[in-house]
Parts: sequence; structure tokens; C-alpha cells
Amino acid sequence: MIGIFDSGIGGLTVAKAIMNSLPSYDIVYMGDTARTPYGTKSAATIAEYSLQVSDFLFNIGAKIIVIACNTASSAAYTQVCENFGVPVFEPIEPAVDLALKNSRKKQIGVIGTRATVKSGVYEKMIMKKNGRSRIHSAACPLLVPIVEEGWLNRPETTMIIKKYLHPLKTRQIDSLILGCTHFPILKKIIQRKMGKRVYLVDSSLAIAEKIKSFLEDHPDVDEQISKTGSTRFMVSDLTDRFEQSARTILKRRILLEHADL
Amino acid sequence: MIGIFDSGIGGLTVAKAIMNSLPSYDIVYMGDTARTPYGTKSAATIAEYSLQVSDFLFNIGAKIIVIACNTASSAAYTQVCENFGVPVFEPIEPAVDLALKNSRKKQIGVIGTRATVKSGVYEKMIMKKNGRSRIHSAACPLLVPIVEEGWLNRPETTMIIKKYLHPLKTRQIDSLILGCTHFPILKKIIQRKMGKRVYLVDSSLAIAEKIKSFLEDHPDVDEQISKTGSTRFMVSDLTDRFEQSARTILKRRILLEHADL
Repeated sequence: MIGIFDSGIGGLTVAKAIMNSLPSYDIVYMGDTARTPYGTKSAATIAEYSLQVSDFLFNIGAKIIVIACNTASSAAYTQVCENFGVPVFEPIEPAVDLALKNSRKKQIGVIGTRATVKSGVYEKMIMKKNGRSRIHSAACPLLVPIVEEGWLNRPETTMIIKKYLHPLKTRQIDSLILGCTHFPILKKIIQRKMGKRVYLVDSSLAIAEKIKSFLEDHPDVDEQISKTGSTRFMVSDLTDRFEQSARTILKRRILLEHADL
Repeated sequence: MIGIFDSGIGGLTVAKAIMNSLPSYDIVYMGDTARTPYGTKSAATIAEYSLQVSDFLFNIGAKIIVIACNTASSAAYTQVCENFGVPVFEPIEPAVDLALKNSRKKQIGVIGTRATVKSGVYEKMIMKKNGRSRIHSAACPLLVPIVEEGWLNRPETTMIIKKYLHPLKTRQIDSLILGCTHFPILKKIIQRKMGKRVYLVDSSLAIAEKIKSFLEDHPDVDEQISKTGSTRFMVSDLTDRFEQSARTILKRRILLEHADL
């Protein structure tokens, strides 16, 4: 099956995009809710946790591993690639490609957790692909707990988003990478605050598209993935709240299973 | 020495109160920043982590263990008591005593993380001590990341606090337990929003007072604790941000050391 991992429940945005784009493919999701969030932690700790979750997915039969979490990708992508003999996907490169494609002036904004922004992973990837780009980043750490609280339509949320986006707005960016799995949930407010001329890059859609075209090009990998349309959602810690957050994100009720890492 | 444990850096409010009340006593602090926060996780996971941190403190020579974290106390106090042969302190009972003492109408408010409020630990303790009390609780989960962000004087913070406290205000409580280590940092705003007639219970002061009087009554325990005035602050994950948050809380720079659990 396709194994998707995330630091918590935010990666369900990526699971949803993959399920929409490859509806018959079997999917297993593992969210490390026992140690969530990763975004405030150090790169070494994030890498250690990421390898444990990848190992879990590999052992239960994942034929490709999708790192849904931007923070985990920025800290551990290379290590995950080196440790398991399966294709590994991450959201950063597909998001950068989409941002560059939709940016006329190459003034690109990036928002993410503190760890993702500090890693500079988006800047490096953008500059590698287009050295004349200008990148403006902002860490938006409070948006993760706000989404997990389900505060999607509150005036406090709008105020906090406005405050975080202000420096990007003054730089007149023309495309903005939503560099955290939780942020697509706030897309409407972000779009309203940035103005409709700014193209918002939803990395969940970008990564799903990339996986689809990879599987079309690699029938040997594709045929290893079972296609009964089954989905399993596992978390390393299970509470009512995580179930509610999952419902907020997927807009439907799902069965979350507890699994020890 | 006195071993203090917390899920992260919030427990430094308790360490500070103990250092003020027992300045010569040696102190070791361990904050489980690699898995912080505990307040959104399940009771079973919190108990497991709490035992690991207590074990760490016990093994490096703690003669008493202070559970600074309300969430950990509510999920694991009994288990920590049973597993290590040393006195264990927690903030809940001292806070309840102080709340009852300062409440005329016995209309008591409690704010905490989602896990603490869900556990009902304050309600049970209050009702055990005074069965005619009325208790009104509110989970305030966003206040933890807000303090860790250092957003202490922002209009967004005031708005969020106002929103959380509104139901307690309409119940006309006369004392309010700040049932999370982070909340004393926001005491001024909380006092302003509740009005000056509401007595705010800072559990860090309550627990420090309780430890002091225990040691006066138990010279056998007291003499086992070294008194060179040394302090060590350890965390299971170390980032610049945790150092900044520690400074926000203690209002001075401290050396944080990394230690694996």
C-alpha cells in the first residue's frame, strides 16, 4: 500500500488529496500524535522520530512512503530515502515547482512551522531551480494549534493570520507556499488576507499529483501497490480531540486506530 | 537534590517559586521538550512519559520529586508515588487549599489544558474538601503555545483570554485556579479580564510553600537534600526557541542542558 506519515493529524490533508487522485489505491496513514507537534522541536529529534515512523510503515508493507509533514521532510527526507529501499515522496519540491510555475515576478512567500522555516529547505529548493527568485519566509507556529482547536472561523484566527502575513504582504509576493499540512484548512482566510492576485500553493495537491505521475511512469512500483480502495488511519496516541480534529480536516468521520511505534 | 519535572519549559514557574522559597537547596529540573506538550495527549501516554521522567530524576539522585506539570499530575501522580520510594509533590492539592481558603462563596473556577480539565482532578479534590463548592472549568489549550511564542502583550492574546474566560465570568466565580504552569505568566491579563475581586491561585507558589513546610516537618528527608544552592536545568530536546521561552518565564538567561530520557 501507500504509506503516509505525519507528525499528527494535519497530514490528513495530504491523505485526502492522494485518495482523490488515486481512489482505488490502498492507503495506510500513521500520525505520530504521541509526540506531536514536530514543528517546535530540534532537527535531530525530528529526524529520529521520522525514521521510527517510516520504519513502522515499511514493516507493515508500504511500497512507497509519503512524508506528508513539511517539518519532517525538511529534517529527515534524505535519511528516510537512504534507510528504506522504497520510493519516498515529500511535499517540498512539488510545492516549489507549482509556486515557480505560477509566479510571474518570482517573489515567493513561504509560511510554515518554526522548524521548517529555520531549516531554509524551501529557500534552497527555490534557489536551486531559479536563482533569480526572491523568497520571503514567515514562521506561523500558532496556526497549528488553532486548526487543531477547530478555530477556523473566529475573529482571533483572522487577526493572528493578518499579523503573520503582514511582512509578506508588504514584500508584494505573487505566490505563497502553504508549507505546513495544517495551513490548507485556513486557505480561504489566507487568500482573503493576501488578496486574490496571490497564488496559494497547496502542497497536498502538489504531492498527490507528483505521486500519480510517478506511478504512471513506474509500472513496476505501481503493480506492487494493492488497489482495493481500503484506507487505514493510525495514530500513536488516540484522544477524542484527535478524532474531532481529523473530522475538521477531512470533513467526514473516520475510524482512527491506535498503534504503538 | 530536589527533582522537578515538567512536560516542557512551563514548569520553570514552579522551579522559580521553589528557588525563591528554598534558595540554598540544590535543584535539578527536567523538561520533556522532546514530547511537549502533554496537555493534548491521552492519560495513558501522559502516565507513561511521566514515569520515564521521574525515573530519570530518581536515578540521578532526586530525594524528592516535584511534578510541576498539572497535566502529568492529573494523569500520573499515584503511579509516580507508587514507583519510587521518595516523597512526591504535585500542584493540585496545594492550589485547591489556597482556592478554598480565599473563596467566600465557594464558586471556584479552574482553567487548564484539555487533558487536565477532562481528568476532573481539580473538581474531585475540591469536592472532597468542601462538598458544597461549585466548580466551573474551562480548557484553555491555546494559552500554552501563546506563552511559548512569547506573545505576552499582544491584543490577540487578550482577545483569546477574554473568550476563554467569558463563561467563568458569567458564573461569578470568586477564586480562579490557574491550573497550568504556563498561566501564571499571563496572570496580569487574566486578573484584568476577571476583575480584581477574583482571587487568582498561582499553583507554583502553593506547591513551593507546601514543600517548604513538609521539609520543616521532616528533617530526615531534609537532611538528605544537598544545599549548595546549585541549579541544573535539563531538557529532552534543545532548541533556541526553548531557551528564549525559558528566558521569558524566568526573566533571566539560564543554561539549558540536553539530556536523553
